[in-house]
Amino acid sequence: MTGDQKPTAKPSGHPSNKLWGGRFSGHTNPSVAQLNLSLPVDKKLVLEDLATSRAHAAMLGETGIISRKDAEILFTGLQKIEKEIGEESFVFDEALEDIHMNIEARLHEIVGDVAGRLHTARSRNDQVATDLRLWIRTAIEGLDAKFVDLQRAIIDLADQHAATLMPGFTHGQAAQPITFGHHLMAYYEMIRRDRGRLGDCRNRLNECPLGAAALAGTAFPIDRHQTARILEFDTPMRNSIDAVSARDFALEFLGALAIGAVHLSKLAGEIILWASPAFGFVKLPDSISTGSSIMPQKKNPDGAEIVRAKSGRLTGNLVHLLGVMKGLPLAYMKDLQEDKAPVFDSAETLALCLDVMTAMLREVEIDAVNMKKMASAKFITATDAADWLVRKLDLPFRQAHRVVGELVTMAESKGVDLPDLAIEDLRSVEPRISETIFDVLSPERSASSRTSFGGTSPEIVREAIKKAREELK
Amino acid sequence: MTGDQKPTAKPSGHPSNKLWGGRFSGHTNPSVAQLNLSLPVDKKLVLEDLATSRAHAAMLGETGIISRKDAEILFTGLQKIEKEIGEESFVFDEALEDIHMNIEARLHEIVGDVAGRLHTARSRNDQVATDLRLWIRTAIEGLDAKFVDLQRAIIDLADQHAATLMPGFTHGQAAQPITFGHHLMAYYEMIRRDRGRLGDCRNRLNECPLGAAALAGTAFPIDRHQTARILEFDTPMRNSIDAVSARDFALEFLGALAIGAVHLSKLAGEIILWASPAFGFVKLPDSISTGSSIMPQKKNPDGAEIVRAKSGRLTGNLVHLLGVMKGLPLAYMKDLQEDKAPVFDSAETLALCLDVMTAMLREVEIDAVNMKKMASAKFITATDAADWLVRKLDLPFRQAHRVVGELVTMAESKGVDLPDLAIEDLRSVEPRISETIFDVLSPERSASSRTSFGGTSPEIVREAIKKAREELK
Amino acid sequence: MTGDQKPTAKPSGHPSNKLWGGRFSGHTNPSVAQLNLSLPVDKKLVLEDLATSRAHAAMLGETGIISRKDAEILFTGLQKIEKEIGEESFVFDEALEDIHMNIEARLHEIVGDVAGRLHTARSRNDQVATDLRLWIRTAIEGLDAKFVDLQRAIIDLADQHAATLMPGFTHGQAAQPITFGHHLMAYYEMIRRDRGRLGDCRNRLNECPLGAAALAGTAFPIDRHQTARILEFDTPMRNSIDAVSARDFALEFLGALAIGAVHLSKLAGEIILWASPAFGFVKLPDSISTGSSIMPQKKNPDGAEIVRAKSGRLTGNLVHLLGVMKGLPLAYMKDLQEDKAPVFDSAETLALCLDVMTAMLREVEIDAVNMKKMASAKFITATDAADWLVRKLDLPFRQAHRVVGELVTMAESKGVDLPDLAIEDLRSVEPRISETIFDVLSPERSASSRTSFGGTSPEIVREAIKKAREELK
Amino acid sequence: MTGDQKPTAKPSGHPSNKLWGGRFSGHTNPSVAQLNLSLPVDKKLVLEDLATSRAHAAMLGETGIISRKDAEILFTGLQKIEKEIGEESFVFDEALEDIHMNIEARLHEIVGDVAGRLHTARSRNDQVATDLRLWIRTAIEGLDAKFVDLQRAIIDLADQHAATLMPGFTHGQAAQPITFGHHLMAYYEMIRRDRGRLGDCRNRLNECPLGAAALAGTAFPIDRHQTARILEFDTPMRNSIDAVSARDFALEFLGALAIGAVHLSKLAGEIILWASPAFGFVKLPDSISTGSSIMPQKKNPDGAEIVRAKSGRLTGNLVHLLGVMKGLPLAYMKDLQEDKAPVFDSAETLALCLDVMTAMLREVEIDAVNMKKMASAKFITATDAADWLVRKLDLPFRQAHRVVGELVTMAESKGVDLPDLAIEDLRSVEPRISETIFDVLSPERSASSRTSFGGTSPEIVREAIKKAREELK
Repeated sequence: MTGDQKPTAKPSGHPSNKLWGGRFSGHTNPSVAQLNLSLPVDKKLVLEDLATSRAHAAMLGETGIISRKDAEILFTGLQKIEKEIGEESFVFDEALEDIHMNIEARLHEIVGDVAGRLHTARSRNDQVATDLRLWIRTAIEGLDAKFVDLQRAIIDLADQHAATLMPGFTHGQAAQPITFGHHLMAYYEMIRRDRGRLGDCRNRLNECPLGAAALAGTAFPIDRHQTARILEFDTPMRNSIDAVSARDFALEFLGALAIGAVHLSKLAGEIILWASPAFGFVKLPDSISTGSSIMPQKKNPDGAEIVRAKSGRLTGNLVHLLGVMKGLPLAYMKDLQEDKAPVFDSAETLALCLDVMTAMLREVEIDAVNMKKMASAKFITATDAADWLVRKLDLPFRQAHRVVGELVTMAESKGVDLPDLAIEDLRSVEPRISETIFDVLSPERSASSRTSFGGTSPEIVREAIKKAREELK
Repeated sequence: MTGDQKPTAKPSGHPSNKLWGGRFSGHTNPSVAQLNLSLPVDKKLVLEDLATSRAHAAMLGETGIISRKDAEILFTGLQKIEKEIGEESFVFDEALEDIHMNIEARLHEIVGDVAGRLHTARSRNDQVATDLRLWIRTAIEGLDAKFVDLQRAIIDLADQHAATLMPGFTHGQAAQPITFGHHLMAYYEMIRRDRGRLGDCRNRLNECPLGAAALAGTAFPIDRHQTARILEFDTPMRNSIDAVSARDFALEFLGALAIGAVHLSKLAGEIILWASPAFGFVKLPDSISTGSSIMPQKKNPDGAEIVRAKSGRLTGNLVHLLGVMKGLPLAYMKDLQEDKAPVFDSAETLALCLDVMTAMLREVEIDAVNMKKMASAKFITATDAADWLVRKLDLPFRQAHRVVGELVTMAESKGVDLPDLAIEDLRSVEPRISETIFDVLSPERSASSRTSFGGTSPEIVREAIKKAREELK
Repeated sequence: MTGDQKPTAKPSGHPSNKLWGGRFSGHTNPSVAQLNLSLPVDKKLVLEDLATSRAHAAMLGETGIISRKDAEILFTGLQKIEKEIGEESFVFDEALEDIHMNIEARLHEIVGDVAGRLHTARSRNDQVATDLRLWIRTAIEGLDAKFVDLQRAIIDLADQHAATLMPGFTHGQAAQPITFGHHLMAYYEMIRRDRGRLGDCRNRLNECPLGAAALAGTAFPIDRHQTARILEFDTPMRNSIDAVSARDFALEFLGALAIGAVHLSKLAGEIILWASPAFGFVKLPDSISTGSSIMPQKKNPDGAEIVRAKSGRLTGNLVHLLGVMKGLPLAYMKDLQEDKAPVFDSAETLALCLDVMTAMLREVEIDAVNMKKMASAKFITATDAADWLVRKLDLPFRQAHRVVGELVTMAESKGVDLPDLAIEDLRSVEPRISETIFDVLSPERSASSRTSFGGTSPEIVREAIKKAREELK
Repeated sequence: MTGDQKPTAKPSGHPSNKLWGGRFSGHTNPSVAQLNLSLPVDKKLVLEDLATSRAHAAMLGETGIISRKDAEILFTGLQKIEKEIGEESFVFDEALEDIHMNIEARLHEIVGDVAGRLHTARSRNDQVATDLRLWIRTAIEGLDAKFVDLQRAIIDLADQHAATLMPGFTHGQAAQPITFGHHLMAYYEMIRRDRGRLGDCRNRLNECPLGAAALAGTAFPIDRHQTARILEFDTPMRNSIDAVSARDFALEFLGALAIGAVHLSKLAGEIILWASPAFGFVKLPDSISTGSSIMPQKKNPDGAEIVRAKSGRLTGNLVHLLGVMKGLPLAYMKDLQEDKAPVFDSAETLALCLDVMTAMLREVEIDAVNMKKMASAKFITATDAADWLVRKLDLPFRQAHRVVGELVTMAESKGVDLPDLAIEDLRSVEPRISETIFDVLSPERSASSRTSFGGTSPEIVREAIKKAREELK
């Protein structure tokens, strides 16, 4: 965020601000000018601001508020500016405070005094609210596409490993054997909901503030439905005061992104663990790891570490704007200018993190041997033993749990695993146990037996993958 | 939150925990036991836990995993416990750590060893996830109803004041005259979206984790669709690992509530301002204010102040759980136990805040005279003057803005308001100004002229109110 | 936090509040009364409130503002109440809103109308600010003692393992061999700074608000230095408006605790890792682990998991109060009532977490064999090889780093570790390498060679331990 | 923060990274490279990094680890780079990932292979930790100076208004008459503590990590006390693992700044209120206000609004890093790279906010007439009346409070203020009231009577100002 505070050229504090300077005679204090300067942040809205202005100009012409000819001149001028932006020939001027004034000033250079007609029946208050909604709407589309990329990477990897055994962990302890494909598909589901949250956010924010003017609407016979339509909003916002001051759409967006970042932090955290020598579940090829300046042997999962850390950043951005909005009276307050930095930062950070995680899953090398080795950790099929007691001997589960608890203690004291106990040992605890109990004690058997809906058996995982592929079509 | 930490009776650390103690011989360290103790918090889940268990028992019976007779015994025992809860005769025992074990222990007292069959094919991991989803689902219904109450209070007050003039503020400065009804209806819109967020959250969370067991599903032939149906979930969750470890539903809920709290904090903040002697827009009757222990004359808007403060609390609760979830590997980790305190607290805090704000709006006395007085603040119709220049003299708005800026400066130097300037004064700045400009300079005229969609004129406000009443039907 | 919202008895909303009801005729709205009700939270301040009142009474008597006899009556009455508190015979009444009014009401029962003299020249505003400072001051003492307990547990364990080899990790990858004692002593240092922060906080908050009255001071000839002295404050606060409205002391306390909780979360996170089958560095005895309701073999590090999670909670509490305080005008606002819940919760949560972590370190079993095994991970002494090249062949480090990088690649392609390479292999990369390089490639040698100040060699660690023991004396 | 994510030139992902590339053959994935790229943020550390390297080079020479000649060559090369930085001729290259590698690469260009000797016995891990401590230490000095500027502005304004009456507010309601100077001096006190927090933070962080190397120290005979001395640290850090992984110094800094920002947000919030037409306590000259693009009459307190909003930002930055640090295992993890963005942003944001608030207080125009008018608000001296009853009639305060409560009710029903009641009216409630009670009912008298230590009377305020001036000398 530092960049915001250090403009390359100090704002001059020159008094004759083209948009509002009429009544002002003194120079602005340089610190105040610098704090007010929003251009380094809000210039990201340039395309949205041009779109908003074009829609407004078209509507002013259609409704006869300005002449059709003037509307056309404005429209053409705005098109020219958009071209300059595309060609990177547009010169941003920090003395002009924000993106709106930069565009208006340039428009004036191009079309002369007609430029002054564009601001009829509108204010920067409704303009910037419209711009930001448009920006987030586009950002959501971009993020959704990246979420889909990650889902595809998950599915492809899960497909290869639908039957690869790994230990399932609870409390960080080996709990039950699972399939790696199943584990991965858990992330598919999280992202499905992340996408759902973004979609809901998009639908809810898709109402157009334009025409609310400063806060109260206008006496000009504007057609807000038309501008809403042109900008592909579902409807104009229904209350002009709400239109200029609401930022819950930005909060919801930041919240959805923070939750998404938490999900990525989980996956990143797991990859870091899996890449550690203790686990050895994955190897990171050079493309997704970095080295050490002092330890020549190191391959570090830097990408995953930073993704994990960014979850803190996205939470911070959310807190930032929640803090800004708290207790603020209606209608527009300049405090709202602080909405853009966290929104832009969270969107761009998450986009990059998604790319990185997709690359990770596409390029990481799985060590199925190590996974399987740990999936055979001691006692990992104890639940299966208990379930066998329930099924075959009709023990209540709670009693079966106690019996197996005793068997585990016995095995532990002998330094062996459950399958290594002699049948006599088993029977010393529960005389009715038969040899068939050993059938359920292999990790493969354990995993493949869990065929309940959503369970870890390879067949169920493959069904889930198939369904997911259909969903993404 | 303090209560959580200070159980009335210290947990004993007794080793023979009924649910998992089989293999344990040592006593639990008292501090560890106290930290683990979740009963003071999770006993709020008692009804949900009973519902979940009844559904599970019914399904176990239907599928033949246990006998129908045992299923019935379990069902009846659970009903009895629910009755005891209703009669407040159920004795919670902190030595039993959590709500699940409290219920299982009591069930065992009632039905004997059959109780041990209830835990077949399930774990506390899927159980508590199901309980919490049910709790939030119910909480959303309750909160939505309270949001509607507040919307109705807003509409009723707005209806009375559809034409009451007040100053509209931007930057805390008097900007343009608006109607108080219009101002209030902005809050109607915010709450409409708050309700939308809650509704989306409800729909997304309405998938059933039950049957995921510890994390991997089960080899028992359970019917997850049936338990989902009984508990009125739309579907069972599709991945068992996700089912036990996902808490994004709780984060989304906390996020939606934090945003709602921000909206209430705005309204509360405004009421505090309006009640100050500087504004005098409202009077707080005794029912919604409190006094001072030292200053006998004081009437304080305590309720509004606390509502405003609670926004910080709900943000804190959201940060709390985002922090807990960050970087946590799959599947269930005990860290997740920290999900409940913030969820319960935010839900109950917001519910109370909604009641208070509804009471405030129902009981506050509006001082329309003071409102109107400030709506006639100096220069408040300057925009109308500029618009007049655009409409009548075809000035570009930007030029009109400059002309009025000069007129304001002139009036200020004479210590008068715009309507007090002589026509000659006006013409010294813009010779074409005619007397009809004075028509647009009254606050009433200004407000009633803003008839654009969503604008502040009384007729538009009345339409909005009508539409809102229909929405709430 | 839930408890706050659900008083066991609903506040009645009775109008004749003894402290401020004089001017009020209407009944308080029940929701407003419930939101205002602070007793369930602020009754924790009971001893501090009594101390504050006793000091105030004594001063009123000394200065002649009330008679010495009345002062004595008040003092004796307050003593009696303190005794009732100690005996748990004091009856708290939620209808009386807060702890101050509960005490004043009881005092009135005991001493009659003289009780009404106690509130001379004070307000609840300065009273509660004084109470909370006292409470935090005491809490800091308690927390500091618990931090010391943890430091001692760290030192004792470090002492046993001053020479125990383990892999040092960077990026979660085995980096260099270190000693476990050295690793532990890093936490000693963190806690040393945590204690420093608490000490600074204590010193800064130790100024007395009492006598600021409502906000402006008083015309009574009070002696604020005397009350400050009685309550062991360094000085009275110097500005009465600041005295009643400042809460930066609480924010600083919450901040120091949140940072401390981050440190505990690191240690807890490491213990969880170490206890996993992948690491196997530690075993959790029954006293500090719990079992699973479904998996009979599990031993879970629940205590450590919850401690890790509580870091999120303490961050949330800090955010809570920062949010409350933001933008609040002077002087006392009821928003400040929200200061206590996060303060109490963070203090009590951290205290419990400290006890748990101390117990963990005291009772955990170290598996030095597994630690050492991983400390011999492939290539872990690559830095030592590079340093050898620098020392013996005078290579610039950067060049030595490259040479060893090539050796690592060669060894990796042969599937061996560095010490397994033949001298010819080494010389094929750098011809001047001699056999003595093998001396530096053992993990023991590597660790013991790092004798720079603060380094990992056993002798340096033992010195650090000795110094730490002296510090704690 | 956006800037971080959008490097002007995409990092190439070129494999031959000079610092660690030895063992790497593949190209880095572009997204991973971009996420890793820290140069846009960490180039702020350039001067600190050069200082650290110079100190390290000097020490390597002194201890004979490298030759004195080589040490001199390195030193001279580093001096040359510092000159290039000063002249802005240094070319930063994003392909080189971070500031350390940029400098090392340039050093190599200047001095050739000797550059490779600089990294002997150090790592980027200890280097960056040292750099950041140095940066914060300098930042604290700069911030402290700005805090002092603001304190001076407060004192100067307070001095002019030591006797200017204004209403003191509690709960946003007029409570008691106070002096404006007294109100301002409350901020002096807050800042005094803000500065204390920064000073404590500075003292605590002033320990030198350099020489900790990657994490374990080094076998080279380095002299950490020497580098610490050169860099003006009090001592080298005592544990090398702690040295590279501790970031509590950054958290403490962010916490202190967030609290400071809360204080500024309070002052900013008050200025916004005071500038509103409802209060009219201050007028904002052109230099510290801005205009509206649509409303020609507006003068907006934008600077104060943004300062208020920045409090949310600084809270967000603190949450950001607390989130990053939570649960992170030792030692260095790449997650720590996320420490710099929030630190730089909070420091620079607060610096600018301090400048703005100082300018505000220097340039704002006080309307003492409006202040005094509201200081005479109805019933504002009710406490004085109660105190009179205590002093003159020896009523217990609680009873006096009730009497005045009744008088207020009576006056209210008559639509008058307390001083307007006839003596008979007063006596109808309390027969012993004499005419002298009217003496205490003027706001001037009320304020000047509050001469208790820290009270609001002009004489006490002037003493406080005098003391403050002495403190700042």
